[in-house]
Amino acid sequence: MSTAFDLIVRNAQAATAADLFRCDIGITGGRITALGESLQAGPNTREIDAAGRFVTPGGVDSHCHIDQPMLPPVRMADDFETGTRSAACGGTTTVIPFAAQQKGQGVQAAVDDYHRRAEGKASVDYAFHLIVSDPTPMVMSEELPSLIDKGYTSFKLYMTYEDMKLDDRQILELLEVARLHGAMVMVHAENTDAITYLTERLLAVGKTAPRFHGLSRPSPVEREATHRAITLAELVDVPILLVHVSGAEAVEQIRWARGKGLNVFAETCPQYLFLTQDDLALPGFHGARCVCSPPPRDKANQQVIWDGLADGLFTVLSSDHAPFNYDNDAGGKRLGGREPEFPYIPNGVPGIETRMGLLFSEGVLTGRLTLQQFVALTATNAARLYGLYPRKGTIAVGSDADLVVWDTGMPYTIRNEALHHAADYTPYEGRELQAWPAMTLLRGEVVWDGKRFLGRAGAGQFLHCERPEAARPRPREQSWRRWVEMDA
Amino acid sequence: MSTAFDLIVRNAQAATAADLFRCDIGITGGRITALGESLQAGPNTREIDAAGRFVTPGGVDSHCHIDQPMLPPVRMADDFETGTRSAACGGTTTVIPFAAQQKGQGVQAAVDDYHRRAEGKASVDYAFHLIVSDPTPMVMSEELPSLIDKGYTSFKLYMTYEDMKLDDRQILELLEVARLHGAMVMVHAENTDAITYLTERLLAVGKTAPRFHGLSRPSPVEREATHRAITLAELVDVPILLVHVSGAEAVEQIRWARGKGLNVFAETCPQYLFLTQDDLALPGFHGARCVCSPPPRDKANQQVIWDGLADGLFTVLSSDHAPFNYDNDAGGKRLGGREPEFPYIPNGVPGIETRMGLLFSEGVLTGRLTLQQFVALTATNAARLYGLYPRKGTIAVGSDADLVVWDTGMPYTIRNEALHHAADYTPYEGRELQAWPAMTLLRGEVVWDGKRFLGRAGAGQFLHCERPEAARPRPREQSWRRWVEMDA
Amino acid sequence: MSTAFDLIVRNAQAATAADLFRCDIGITGGRITALGESLQAGPNTREIDAAGRFVTPGGVDSHCHIDQPMLPPVRMADDFETGTRSAACGGTTTVIPFAAQQKGQGVQAAVDDYHRRAEGKASVDYAFHLIVSDPTPMVMSEELPSLIDKGYTSFKLYMTYEDMKLDDRQILELLEVARLHGAMVMVHAENTDAITYLTERLLAVGKTAPRFHGLSRPSPVEREATHRAITLAELVDVPILLVHVSGAEAVEQIRWARGKGLNVFAETCPQYLFLTQDDLALPGFHGARCVCSPPPRDKANQQVIWDGLADGLFTVLSSDHAPFNYDNDAGGKRLGGREPEFPYIPNGVPGIETRMGLLFSEGVLTGRLTLQQFVALTATNAARLYGLYPRKGTIAVGSDADLVVWDTGMPYTIRNEALHHAADYTPYEGRELQAWPAMTLLRGEVVWDGKRFLGRAGAGQFLHCERPEAARPRPREQSWRRWVEMDA
Amino acid sequence: MSTAFDLIVRNAQAATAADLFRCDIGITGGRITALGESLQAGPNTREIDAAGRFVTPGGVDSHCHIDQPMLPPVRMADDFETGTRSAACGGTTTVIPFAAQQKGQGVQAAVDDYHRRAEGKASVDYAFHLIVSDPTPMVMSEELPSLIDKGYTSFKLYMTYEDMKLDDRQILELLEVARLHGAMVMVHAENTDAITYLTERLLAVGKTAPRFHGLSRPSPVEREATHRAITLAELVDVPILLVHVSGAEAVEQIRWARGKGLNVFAETCPQYLFLTQDDLALPGFHGARCVCSPPPRDKANQQVIWDGLADGLFTVLSSDHAPFNYDNDAGGKRLGGREPEFPYIPNGVPGIETRMGLLFSEGVLTGRLTLQQFVALTATNAARLYGLYPRKGTIAVGSDADLVVWDTGMPYTIRNEALHHAADYTPYEGRELQAWPAMTLLRGEVVWDGKRFLGRAGAGQFLHCERPEAARPRPREQSWRRWVEMDA
Repeated sequence: MSTAFDLIVRNAQAATAADLFRCDIGITGGRITALGESLQAGPNTREIDAAGRFVTPGGVDSHCHIDQPMLPPVRMADDFETGTRSAACGGTTTVIPFAAQQKGQGVQAAVDDYHRRAEGKASVDYAFHLIVSDPTPMVMSEELPSLIDKGYTSFKLYMTYEDMKLDDRQILELLEVARLHGAMVMVHAENTDAITYLTERLLAVGKTAPRFHGLSRPSPVEREATHRAITLAELVDVPILLVHVSGAEAVEQIRWARGKGLNVFAETCPQYLFLTQDDLALPGFHGARCVCSPPPRDKANQQVIWDGLADGLFTVLSSDHAPFNYDNDAGGKRLGGREPEFPYIPNGVPGIETRMGLLFSEGVLTGRLTLQQFVALTATNAARLYGLYPRKGTIAVGSDADLVVWDTGMPYTIRNEALHHAADYTPYEGRELQAWPAMTLLRGEVVWDGKRFLGRAGAGQFLHCERPEAARPRPREQSWRRWVEMDA
Repeated sequence: MSTAFDLIVRNAQAATAADLFRCDIGITGGRITALGESLQAGPNTREIDAAGRFVTPGGVDSHCHIDQPMLPPVRMADDFETGTRSAACGGTTTVIPFAAQQKGQGVQAAVDDYHRRAEGKASVDYAFHLIVSDPTPMVMSEELPSLIDKGYTSFKLYMTYEDMKLDDRQILELLEVARLHGAMVMVHAENTDAITYLTERLLAVGKTAPRFHGLSRPSPVEREATHRAITLAELVDVPILLVHVSGAEAVEQIRWARGKGLNVFAETCPQYLFLTQDDLALPGFHGARCVCSPPPRDKANQQVIWDGLADGLFTVLSSDHAPFNYDNDAGGKRLGGREPEFPYIPNGVPGIETRMGLLFSEGVLTGRLTLQQFVALTATNAARLYGLYPRKGTIAVGSDADLVVWDTGMPYTIRNEALHHAADYTPYEGRELQAWPAMTLLRGEVVWDGKRFLGRAGAGQFLHCERPEAARPRPREQSWRRWVEMDA
Repeated sequence: MSTAFDLIVRNAQAATAADLFRCDIGITGGRITALGESLQAGPNTREIDAAGRFVTPGGVDSHCHIDQPMLPPVRMADDFETGTRSAACGGTTTVIPFAAQQKGQGVQAAVDDYHRRAEGKASVDYAFHLIVSDPTPMVMSEELPSLIDKGYTSFKLYMTYEDMKLDDRQILELLEVARLHGAMVMVHAENTDAITYLTERLLAVGKTAPRFHGLSRPSPVEREATHRAITLAELVDVPILLVHVSGAEAVEQIRWARGKGLNVFAETCPQYLFLTQDDLALPGFHGARCVCSPPPRDKANQQVIWDGLADGLFTVLSSDHAPFNYDNDAGGKRLGGREPEFPYIPNGVPGIETRMGLLFSEGVLTGRLTLQQFVALTATNAARLYGLYPRKGTIAVGSDADLVVWDTGMPYTIRNEALHHAADYTPYEGRELQAWPAMTLLRGEVVWDGKRFLGRAGAGQFLHCERPEAARPRPREQSWRRWVEMDA
Repeated sequence: MSTAFDLIVRNAQAATAADLFRCDIGITGGRITALGESLQAGPNTREIDAAGRFVTPGGVDSHCHIDQPMLPPVRMADDFETGTRSAACGGTTTVIPFAAQQKGQGVQAAVDDYHRRAEGKASVDYAFHLIVSDPTPMVMSEELPSLIDKGYTSFKLYMTYEDMKLDDRQILELLEVARLHGAMVMVHAENTDAITYLTERLLAVGKTAPRFHGLSRPSPVEREATHRAITLAELVDVPILLVHVSGAEAVEQIRWARGKGLNVFAETCPQYLFLTQDDLALPGFHGARCVCSPPPRDKANQQVIWDGLADGLFTVLSSDHAPFNYDNDAGGKRLGGREPEFPYIPNGVPGIETRMGLLFSEGVLTGRLTLQQFVALTATNAARLYGLYPRKGTIAVGSDADLVVWDTGMPYTIRNEALHHAADYTPYEGRELQAWPAMTLLRGEVVWDGKRFLGRAGAGQFLHCERPEAARPRPREQSWRRWVEMDA
């Protein structure tokens, strides 16, 4: 080895999305420069002994909301300082929150705003997805192509929420921009008109409690939008990613689409594995804690999500971290005590810190998933989907030395007081796990040692995303879009 | 028999949707008053000998456009005089065209207008469906309930066409009106935004010929809207009827819905059995003759439609008669010689006279369908779906004596010059059939004797439709709508 | 009317599989000779006033076991005298039990044996299906073709039961005989090896109680055999009928097959609508009463069966009457007190008398089915499937005057003591219905008047079955069998 | 690095099933001991410069027949010397042929026989699958458990072929042995009775040419057996692997099974990507070259297989190498000139050398698959499925230094004369590829240098397989087998 290592992680049981091998990990300049048996230390090489421990790539949480502007008085509990600190302590070293265009504003302006929010505060690396809510000609023909060139290579579109939603025509246009310029499109799939219709009917008969949130967005609402998004992508001939898939009905559509040869990616989140509609129906207003969209379903749907993780239906498990306080915060779930009707409850659950521990414990240690699947779902696939690979998402020569060393086999009980986000609750309070990060390294630096956050606000770097390979249309003979282009 | 028969049809091989039996048919006052062996004639009883002939109920064509106002200069070739004459000569004794609401106008106004168009002209009986294109509160809460009471018990809604289409919210509201008041809802299912998107792309690259009509509305466009309509009906918990289903992709959705226990009816038309996209691709502008929506697909899709007729997927075969001249008519297919780009070609094919002969010949005589299925598909089911049964659609004691006596076994070649509509072409020109109506009776009067039209403009009666039994939600435990009503 | 009526049923609300009409029914020589308004009575015409009552065709129970030889000591409770008496009192005027070939014996011998069993005893009309359990060349090339000519035009084959089952090769050969000679094939679809395997495992761990009967034949066992039977029929290109379909998994296969254009008929029975696995788990040995194969499933599966009846998936509802005593009969369910392990419990439930009342009450009067569907499912379709139509199964001129006049609207509680079979229990004891036959007529003679059986042992006639139209392969281009015949 | 490297492969673009990274590969004692930037060479370290080249793990061909005894006069063209030489030259460093039990013989005897055949001849490493054709109690309770302990941890079972096939009962028993002892079960899924039936019908009408092989085993034959195998595995609750899946119908079943949460693996082969039924229909007897089972289908089916590779349906791409001479070999395809009827044509195609080049060229370089998918499909997944991982199948510290260095971008035309098997033809003669192995290393030794075979007969080592993790039942609540065990 021509250059000495800054750090060697010894005797790791290192896991990638494909492999599991015992080795030393040699790190130089924040990057992995060697994997080997008995790597030789230099005079200034620090060493960490990982003997008997699993070491995985630092998590890539590709769906999280941090310091995202909300309609007042609602406000998110986490800014980039608390949000990324929480990520680091939970084993996540890269986050991709959303730069959300406001209607009437440009997308570049949203990006600029988000850079201001992140700068000096982020303690893990970060990139931005672009939420497109106002696809003006300027946005479509100038801003987005330019932003893709600058390293923002994924869009998110909403099929619901008044201030965000695109209609089918706008979706088609946006998918076309993605196709032409090589971006990945994430879709929040729920039929907005159906939700409004059901919500009005529920409110009209006085059904205002948190649990009716679930009834206002039943599975067919998600299934329909999923089918529609798939069809629109089929017509444009471009891959899409369905985010936060919640259960059997949407999963059925995705399987059906794949059976037709369509290239559809899917993401799910811990709330669809560990929560149910019963959590929305806790006494009093407590169900508001678990209000998120789509809503958690039931046990049978959870099983379908587990099956989809095991058999490759899902490409990514993200947190969809959307943190709000519960108590005594005018911008939190209870609106400072006003306890609003369900449509007005701030929507989302915190989870950036618990994502990896939950899946390691309940997925890997129970035998539902292999360790390699865990790595793929929590890190590698997200990095590949969004153009951060090979810098992020794996343990390989040349990649950033983002690592998690795991404690396994001793119980860890989730307590909000021990978490590092700013929200005043976790939906998983009291759940006992069998795995938790013992150490997190960001580019070779320890940012979590199992007890304390050792990172630094501002140490997180902004990441330019490449055009993802996964966003390229799969070569096939039949394609409506190509038929339009090439004649019939 | 206490009263003498006005007419006895002797020795009929009479078919209903369930039965086939040899009998005499006794008719008094325009109604069937007896079916029996060797009915006894009175002194004034006329007799028709049907020995060796199949006798079926007069057809009920529940999807046809007659004298419907179009955007100038486009105009339909048939008014009620020619349209119903054509129906009668093809074996159809009841038509249900559409009273189409104009945006800004009420539905009652449309109904009034249609009565004026039909009165004094119709030579067969008729009812009206209501096309709702502008669902104002007045329309929804007053006009429609009142019109249902007056005998207009079916709505049609469009998911495409600028001047007709409803958005999802409007569809949900209209389905709710149907549910509350007992109306049947017909849905034209094509995703309008997708059509616009594809059309613009085609035009932009100079693909303007008639055949690109088909490419602008590919199967996924119909499939998506079908899935969406099914979901909206699922949420409201009300049956719907998908009209003019064109092929495999939409059929797959309907089968899937039934597998989930949803009550979805489906209709198809001869153009999806006998035409293909190749007919749109005839040299020059000739393909315009077969431009209709959804467009004809291919041979494999035709087989799927035949299968669906045979196994009960389809409830109704209608004509979707939408007659335009081809030549030398400023309001016709060629716009008087201007030969427009495909989106501007008047949309539809004539077929009110050929519907029954085509299906008898190619369905029954080939063994694809039983004679009973033919009766169900062309007469009984439509009468039941739309509240005209038992007056119309069958051969039973008490029903109107609407009958077709069939010639079978001798070739009949379709020639437009022998048809009775006003359009200057038929898409089936030159096709040789093995069956054709030898005689049509409307309420006991011969209106077609195999050679001449013997009916009379104005002899057709307006029919008040009952609330159809088929429009009632099927009793099931799981229903989103009922969950909303009853609590969760 | 040239001949006077023997009987007129006045003012009937007569239902066929398609129609519902108010009329008088004129009967001469046991046949319906007229349907009309105010039929004229002759001097010797008897009259029955059915004012305000529904009159349906006499039931055709096309799946019932009567006096079928069992392995000693097991014996059926009903012979033809009690079995057909029970049928008549329940509104069924035609039964089609099985002439079951014994291995080593011919099929003609079985037919001869059954004629002996039926003769002088049957009080309703009857035909025989042929159970083929030993398809020797003699049977296949001589007996079956000859028997088809003689009026035995349906076969039943078993995919389970040691003494009955055919292997796939034998099934293919038998399907080919059916195809060549025009017979309908009924299939009992359960995978016999899987049942044996599960049964042995259950017994090995001491799970011998009646409820384990259900666990030994779980849904996948039925689903697999259903798929296999469909495939074998697809290869031979011949329709088949899946009998006693019990739930969602088999239904899914049948829907899937129809989606591929295959001609698959399906039958179900009241036990899959009204019983569940909980009925097998009654305390002590009582669950044995409901032991039948396939076993009853659960509530969700019942809903799937109801949906299948409503939407046309099922062609027939039969009883699968297989009557055994429960108590004190060495040949009954308890083997005279020995209470055997579940595989040795005599297999089947009685139901020939309750079939029609159950479906009328719980199907028609609840709104799940129309009255026409009831007629189709209980009478017309079976008659058509098995070549008895138009003599049996409908109310039409020329058909046998087999009629049921219904009491509706007053509660009828099922009590075994009031039934007319010989079995000492009914699985529906205590169930309250809203409909029951007030009168049954067989060829114009009253055989049940609502209180007493008025028929006569020996009055039932043997029916020669025609080759059923439904057994003919549907004309389609793609067919493996035809590819073999015609070249590739 | 404490020990010097024997060999360094410099500047590799190394690919694993998850990753692609530029590094040097350090090899010591035949194993990879380091991956790093600028690894330091020792005095005796050899070096290979792979600059600009992709380096993948040596292929694992987990489905190939070598020197397998056939019914005389048929004999395979390859013994272990030519078969493994061919493998090495095509980039495959591990083969897993089949030790095939003969009826009446034990499995251990077959294993012993195969060791004799391989010993001293194999030039790449090898393990054996066990074909169980005669599951006697001795085999099931003693031999198989003992052989699993000794490193034979996968079974193959046939649902067709007289001398091999198991019935459903035997399959259930064998699956249970696999479940109890942790073996992986491979299934050849074709319905044997259906094949026999169709074959006899074809022969009876003189359709004896090679192309009728395809017609004798149409897709439904494979689909049915696939469904059945899945069901049997579902009942026993154990994973299975469907081998050589040929097209859409079987794929549909596998997708359906996964949608139900069942753990079903699938394998396909190049013949289903690159051959069609047209190759069986070449003039004269030439189609015999491509006779294999299941037979190649058509273009549409090829697309379905490509889609399944791209979206994760398939876990493995193997060769199913089954080499026979075409000309002048009494044991070859033409039986030495006798040109038999299609059922007697020796069944199989050679392909052990062309497998990897075909997939690299037509899969990776066309953009259908990522390089990582290629590695997973050709090496890693097979190693994991069969308990050879992590020794085989990847490029990781600690793994055997089995490597392929690729030539890409210059055309390589497949010519049988340039291949190294003993068969006198390849079905891919003349096909031009864009990729071919430039070098193959087995445990650090070059065995193919792009021009010559440099390996040595006898240098291949026998590999003891571990119990594969993939063979473990997935933890789920619902499992028929567990219900039997645990009560209901």
